[in-house]
Amino acid sequence: MTNKKIVVIGGSAAGAKAAAKARRLDEFADITIVQKAPDLSMASCGYPYYVGGVFNDRNALLCTPAGVVRDPVFFQKAKKITALVETEVTAINRANKQVTCRHCKSGEHTTLAYDKLVIATGARANMPPIPGIDLPGVTTLLSMADTDYLRAIRDAGEVKRAVVIGGGLIGVEACEALQQSGIQVTVVEAVDQVLTFLDWDLAKLVENHMQAKGVRVLTGIGVKEFVGENGKLIGVKLADGTVLECGLAVMAIGVRPNSELAREARLAVGTFGGITVNQYMQTSDPDIYAGGDCVEIPSRITGSPAFAPMGDLANLEGRVIGENIICGNTATFPGTVHTGICKVFDFSAGSTGLSEKAAQRIGMDGYTTVVNASPDKPGFMGAKILVSKLLVDKEQRILGYQCVGLGDVSRQIATAAMAIQGKLKLADVINADLPYAPPFSPAIDHFITAAHIMENKLKGRMTGIGVREVWHKLQAGEKPFLLDGRNPNEYEEMHLGIGETLIPLGALRARLNELPADKDAEIICFCKISLRGYEAECILRAHGYTNVKVMEGGIMAWPYPREK
Amino acid sequence: MTNKKIVVIGGSAAGAKAAAKARRLDEFADITIVQKAPDLSMASCGYPYYVGGVFNDRNALLCTPAGVVRDPVFFQKAKKITALVETEVTAINRANKQVTCRHCKSGEHTTLAYDKLVIATGARANMPPIPGIDLPGVTTLLSMADTDYLRAIRDAGEVKRAVVIGGGLIGVEACEALQQSGIQVTVVEAVDQVLTFLDWDLAKLVENHMQAKGVRVLTGIGVKEFVGENGKLIGVKLADGTVLECGLAVMAIGVRPNSELAREARLAVGTFGGITVNQYMQTSDPDIYAGGDCVEIPSRITGSPAFAPMGDLANLEGRVIGENIICGNTATFPGTVHTGICKVFDFSAGSTGLSEKAAQRIGMDGYTTVVNASPDKPGFMGAKILVSKLLVDKEQRILGYQCVGLGDVSRQIATAAMAIQGKLKLADVINADLPYAPPFSPAIDHFITAAHIMENKLKGRMTGIGVREVWHKLQAGEKPFLLDGRNPNEYEEMHLGIGETLIPLGALRARLNELPADKDAEIICFCKISLRGYEAECILRAHGYTNVKVMEGGIMAWPYPREK
Repeated sequence: MTNKKIVVIGGSAAGAKAAAKARRLDEFADITIVQKAPDLSMASCGYPYYVGGVFNDRNALLCTPAGVVRDPVFFQKAKKITALVETEVTAINRANKQVTCRHCKSGEHTTLAYDKLVIATGARANMPPIPGIDLPGVTTLLSMADTDYLRAIRDAGEVKRAVVIGGGLIGVEACEALQQSGIQVTVVEAVDQVLTFLDWDLAKLVENHMQAKGVRVLTGIGVKEFVGENGKLIGVKLADGTVLECGLAVMAIGVRPNSELAREARLAVGTFGGITVNQYMQTSDPDIYAGGDCVEIPSRITGSPAFAPMGDLANLEGRVIGENIICGNTATFPGTVHTGICKVFDFSAGSTGLSEKAAQRIGMDGYTTVVNASPDKPGFMGAKILVSKLLVDKEQRILGYQCVGLGDVSRQIATAAMAIQGKLKLADVINADLPYAPPFSPAIDHFITAAHIMENKLKGRMTGIGVREVWHKLQAGEKPFLLDGRNPNEYEEMHLGIGETLIPLGALRARLNELPADKDAEIICFCKISLRGYEAECILRAHGYTNVKVMEGGIMAWPYPREK
Repeated sequence: MTNKKIVVIGGSAAGAKAAAKARRLDEFADITIVQKAPDLSMASCGYPYYVGGVFNDRNALLCTPAGVVRDPVFFQKAKKITALVETEVTAINRANKQVTCRHCKSGEHTTLAYDKLVIATGARANMPPIPGIDLPGVTTLLSMADTDYLRAIRDAGEVKRAVVIGGGLIGVEACEALQQSGIQVTVVEAVDQVLTFLDWDLAKLVENHMQAKGVRVLTGIGVKEFVGENGKLIGVKLADGTVLECGLAVMAIGVRPNSELAREARLAVGTFGGITVNQYMQTSDPDIYAGGDCVEIPSRITGSPAFAPMGDLANLEGRVIGENIICGNTATFPGTVHTGICKVFDFSAGSTGLSEKAAQRIGMDGYTTVVNASPDKPGFMGAKILVSKLLVDKEQRILGYQCVGLGDVSRQIATAAMAIQGKLKLADVINADLPYAPPFSPAIDHFITAAHIMENKLKGRMTGIGVREVWHKLQAGEKPFLLDGRNPNEYEEMHLGIGETLIPLGALRARLNELPADKDAEIICFCKISLRGYEAECILRAHGYTNVKVMEGGIMAWPYPREK
């Protein structure tokens, strides 16, 4: 028996993982990684943190936990894997089961035969043909080379202003990194919000936090031109003609799969341009597997193909591939539930499953959402407010959860992601037994509280109204009776100033005469987080008011300007 | 229609919650809380943090998030609930549907009629009849009075040494609080480990951390006597006659349900002494409900009754009761999956589902465990090692997970708790889509890594051996070949010194001649976390060695003394 020949195109997350897993399962296979870049196994999700100075050792992006750089020598010694760096695969010859390689510097061509081929070519930035986009000073933040470039800018300290185009995950991380390098950043986002995995109402809270940190965020506007002078970027011209002066622009309007090689080899490619794979991560050619940012995987929520270029999924896919190319399709990959998380200065923002926007996009009906603002810990342990949004379908299955704020978002999203993957229903979360002690959570965990509010809503005990709907009512000149149920001292400290009447909850029963005489008048109750708002609703309903609502999330979820 | 009369015995977590929930569902019910203590709605899980000076405002234990103390005036105004404090219920007359109360100070007796009665009488400390246990200086940490007593000791600064009897959750939290008050603490635990919700191997790591923080921990020994002088505690005498000098002793050997009132009223009581309730939290009398630390609830793992005196469960149970006494058994409580967590200085320690010990205790066969030591984040983000143990049953269902260490244990346990409650199997965790970004987790989350190791084990790719078994082998004089696969510089920095041979993984293939000539000799591989240990196993097996094992968790999971 001759040794199995395995060629892996791409040596970052999915490729390197597939190769390493294959090695562990077959000590004698010939395994070769062909990598276009000079580095291997780069922790690419860490690039913004190196740019931003969270750490200063570039090698940390390339090291094993024991501190050894994963270079070709390491791969050879520790893994017995041949890693050809600065080498590009130019063609796949499926008939001959060979790939043609070209060394990026010498230009030399070689061919490699394979029994099993793995395509892990990743993704590249969307770079629309905006005039000036090729100017020095316009970059992306996707490669080690980009990272070195931006880190050098940080270290030189000469660039004073930067524009980040795109307010998605990478845009927001780039923004934070540059701002923390002492650069004044403007983020320009074409749609009406940052972080489109969130719904607008939560994304706006993130945007407000970015503004509070000194970042300028412009939404709903595109870039018309990169303005140069003497062959150097000096500004970004927006669609309305405004020019934002800057010495640096980072393009971060999303990525697209590097699937050309696969296309040229006539492998099936999907609607997002990603390589089509089955549950074994196998392409339309059974001897060729693909994983990472160059493929499409199923959405576990909708069943439709999705493009989910995330580092964790790439690693998991690579592991499945490594097993399947050795053992013959003994492992499967189920797809994504669209889980993501992001640090944004002191905020964290995460989401799993469907946002409301996504539910609308796929035409789902009968779903219900609630917004929950409440602390991540008991007050005496230094609680921080989280604002989250839970979505259930008409069978009350947990389908989406998003959470933003200063507190522990990571646990929230991880818990919900597991609930969604377990196809759990609301009833399973309402009495969930989660780890509680004051250093870690309030007695009733924030996620469980969201489920409680949802239950109140679904059982008809609470009628919610979103902050956005309240705002639009007011903008349209409607005059609901707005009831702030807090105490005067809280009001003094902070209030909306949208025409609300302050009646502390404890005084409400005695002051019903201050409410509209018409018991069918619209009354919208709230407080800081709308817990007292809900209690006010209960009282008013019991006293015959028929049109009472709770503004979900209260003042903490209000993303519009407030008086104080 | 007359208003429904509700009497709630106990005004802490379950009782106060039941009353508040009932009010929200029925504005006109007559609701009375009868509370023996002077305070209401105490955040009792917060007591150790006030004692330890994490915060200094006593009222923070009694406040709403808006900073209002939950006293009888608050209950009356905000909740329209009558709260009778310092009042004890002395008898339940089920025939007349009345309770008899006695005011603790005046001694005055009154009766209250009820339509629905809620018993939430909590639990009290186990106080065995050890000589001297009534001496001043011997206390518990369960009540506000205990808390005030211990906080006064902290503030006075006169007590230099304390003994905590019991190394469970409260014992460990009390220990931390006292140590952080400048008091030298000795913990005395009768069984062979602290935190018995953990298995010994993980508990020992926690114990080592406590010792490193300056706490003396004595396990496997009981207390014989509290030694007094002039009517004051001066020491604790152990079973072996040793006397630990101290001015303070905290009894924390567990709690028992306060179910006497229920017993006297001939309500059914279970094997742990807790009041028996059905899924509606209803006692054997349909008009009487009970919740919190005075009841038994089902284990969702075994189906058997369990005594789970946890603050989060008490609140959830109270909420279910509040609904059921108003709406008539429309809500159910499913029980516990035995989730718990605890801060221990810089460590956190948590568990959900079954420990291995618990699995053995219930006679489960065919289960498998693995120990996983790996970081909670990428190295460049300041990773901290977590050590966890995963348990699956013979159908590969996730049944238990415990985790300790310096890193983010809370997310780990919450994720696993949800997986267990969702009855998820190993396959569901192997490719779970959890929130990943470098500030929050490594690309492959620690829990998922545990699942990967489990898969390797179950697929026969890895043969694990626990640190405890290795230790016992060595103690018994066995001489397995111990292979440390790290680099020399790592070895210099830290090593076990148990006769191991250092062969860096990258050199292993070239140095097979240094291994035993007998290919059936027992070889035990490890490294810092046993990832390279596993790779070494793969290599050796491929080269014909038939008896190769991986020491699970590697050096990070080694709880015994090491050379360096």
